[in-house]
Amino acid sequence: MTIDTDLRHIDDDACRRFLSSAELIGRRWSSGIMLAIARGAHRFSGIVAAVDGLSDRMAAQRLRELQSAGLVARTVIATTPVQVRYELTDAGRELMQSLQPLASWAHRWEHLVDAGLGDAAAS
Amino acid sequence: MTIDTDLRHIDDDACRRFLSSAELIGRRWSSGIMLAIARGAHRFSGIVAAVDGLSDRMAAQRLRELQSAGLVARTVIATTPVQVRYELTDAGRELMQSLQPLASWAHRWEHLVDAGLGDAAAS
Repeated sequence: MTIDTDLRHIDDDACRRFLSSAELIGRRWSSGIMLAIARGAHRFSGIVAAVDGLSDRMAAQRLRELQSAGLVARTVIATTPVQVRYELTDAGRELMQSLQPLASWAHRWEHLVDAGLGDAAAS
Repeated sequence: MTIDTDLRHIDDDACRRFLSSAELIGRRWSSGIMLAIARGAHRFSGIVAAVDGLSDRMAAQRLRELQSAGLVARTVIATTPVQVRYELTDAGRELMQSLQPLASWAHRWEHLVDAGLGDAAAS
């Protein structure tokens, strides 16, 4: 998982896959939701509560997308009432692990991030 | 740079910075442009040519955003005609390095990526 793929020397297919993955994790709420699950929120209400500003509607939509992308698994447990549980798949867990250096980067360059990376990300 | 920040245990500020960074790299064209520069495209025309589907207008806009975020530096060289050169700043270079595990992930899970991560990213 931590094989150091040198981005400067990847081929076109690898480049396309990398950019597609970057877009996925950059979609508003997607990383927040996966992070919330990684941190122990497994119920719908817990996920919504863990992600600042996330509405029920957006949570439901993103969770469906993340399921169909194979990153989140949804299990229905036949209790009364029925329980629905969300977990990261192996791919989802490894994706979150692969983003730890990005979190380190954000910490190391926090003055940049705080000064307005958000504007470049959201404008 | 490769200190393993465990995403599951970061505090709220670190979490916000991480999500803000994820959104930045996930913005359409931003990672493609930074990757093109990392791979040796330093002129405007070369950057546009290196990124599939990128228009002049979007390239100009994203380059301005990346400059104001402190990730790309623009240098004007006083030749005739004037030359404009784009380079990654230290922060930009380290950001690209921090994404190498994401590229490895995309390679390892290429069947998922090819099967429609793109839909989840773009829909």
